[in-house]
Amino acid sequence: MHIKKAVITAAAQGQRTLPMQTLIDEQGADRSVLSLIIQEAVRAGIDEICVVVWPGDQESYSKLAGNTAGRLRFVEQAEPRGYGHAVYCARNFTGSDPFLHLVGDHIYVGAGGRGCAQQLVEVAAAQDCAVSAVQITRENLLPYYGAVGGQRVGSGIYRIDTVIEKPTPTEAEQSLVVPGLRSGQYLCFYGMHVLTTAVMDILDERLNDGANGRITLSSALAELARREQYLALVQAGRRFDVGVKYGLLYAQLAIALAGHDRDQVLSHLLEVVAERQSGAAA
Amino acid sequence: MHIKKAVITAAAQGQRTLPMQTLIDEQGADRSVLSLIIQEAVRAGIDEICVVVWPGDQESYSKLAGNTAGRLRFVEQAEPRGYGHAVYCARNFTGSDPFLHLVGDHIYVGAGGRGCAQQLVEVAAAQDCAVSAVQITRENLLPYYGAVGGQRVGSGIYRIDTVIEKPTPTEAEQSLVVPGLRSGQYLCFYGMHVLTTAVMDILDERLNDGANGRITLSSALAELARREQYLALVQAGRRFDVGVKYGLLYAQLAIALAGHDRDQVLSHLLEVVAERQSGAAA
Repeated sequence: MHIKKAVITAAAQGQRTLPMQTLIDEQGADRSVLSLIIQEAVRAGIDEICVVVWPGDQESYSKLAGNTAGRLRFVEQAEPRGYGHAVYCARNFTGSDPFLHLVGDHIYVGAGGRGCAQQLVEVAAAQDCAVSAVQITRENLLPYYGAVGGQRVGSGIYRIDTVIEKPTPTEAEQSLVVPGLRSGQYLCFYGMHVLTTAVMDILDERLNDGANGRITLSSALAELARREQYLALVQAGRRFDVGVKYGLLYAQLAIALAGHDRDQVLSHLLEVVAERQSGAAA
Repeated sequence: MHIKKAVITAAAQGQRTLPMQTLIDEQGADRSVLSLIIQEAVRAGIDEICVVVWPGDQESYSKLAGNTAGRLRFVEQAEPRGYGHAVYCARNFTGSDPFLHLVGDHIYVGAGGRGCAQQLVEVAAAQDCAVSAVQITRENLLPYYGAVGGQRVGSGIYRIDTVIEKPTPTEAEQSLVVPGLRSGQYLCFYGMHVLTTAVMDILDERLNDGANGRITLSSALAELARREQYLALVQAGRRFDVGVKYGLLYAQLAIALAGHDRDQVLSHLLEVVAERQSGAAA
């Protein structure tokens, strides 16, 4: 399996200015969130990238892509029919090819030199199947993520047999316990997947079955696990959802403290904390 | 003197996405840099705001202004002829009225309930003349700011007789020593002014004298000090230039630590610093 295409979803209402936010990267350069996500895909060997946007956002996103703009195409998600539908909007772009999928509001820090997406693409190519990045996650964070259940088949690799979006603790205990993990720990999605055409087929069935509601990607991935081999790859880096409160601040802190400007930023933090602590004591 | 108009300059090349960056404000709400600056003006009693933009940026800025968009007008600065020229572009908007001037890349934190701009507008109205906000600044920071020399005329109020943009230490010592300040301390601009029509007249003369170069606002303000009464008002809050490296990060930290979410953000910082310190020791 060769993975040369990527789909980035960036059409969610209320998060549409996120790709335009800028951060200083580990090398000290100004970068938009979108360009950091594109860089993650390019490092994984991707040639063509499709960004799913809300109608009218093409131009501003295109300006942000800098010298990678030539690789980009845009498709519009004209109705707010959910995350599964956003991915489905790229079906003409992906055609009969597998694709890397990244979300437009996540930033990854500290995955080492190779990048999370690259590891994922390598495993998918070697195993010739869909692979989702996951992280070992404590039970109290289940309300925020999709989670998977399955069996360990290699170092950091699991065969997925169940997918549940934002499971309750009871659902998780009944269906998502993974042998080998500690009690109260689960495998949760990390915002990064290599998906096959079967996912587009499943989304097509669900979206055209007469119902007209929103559709999650997790429900399609649950079906994918029933139809074909589908793996999870555990990632060690840290993921920041820049769409949540202070997500951008905490992402910037993590990047700065992992990069060239560590000492400068750390000494600023120490000053700020010291000021506050003495202020609190006074 | 009634001050009901404001001019915000946001046309500098390379800084044009700054007004679109978002921060969490002291109340915990998502806000664009532009809307924070507009809020500062509105709190000072301003009715109409003119934003000087690079051609084509109107639409994206207008979206960011939210429910204050009705107060906004845009004028274009079509040539990069410097900061003085950017202010001059708003001359048809200001007409024969004095105006508050704010820069599009500065954020102000911790000025107390009234806001920096409001204090400035009150002093200008009472004294019936132009007033620039200044901060008492150490000599080593002179390369970054415009600085003024003058005489103290009231509590925190100085009559300006000299203005020099980014003075050398020698220039500062010869022309900008202010009686009553400690040695090595100067009054530097804070990015906020109430200006009179005389400033537009001076800019008009300078820009149409046949020369075709860039023009600083400071050179016009130096001439203003020769022509009419012109005051400086010392401000106690903190100013963040979000256009410099980590400016946005440090501004967000300062706002968060001055606001409702202080405890949450402070405890995150303590964790991050502790992790790094133990990492450094290992």
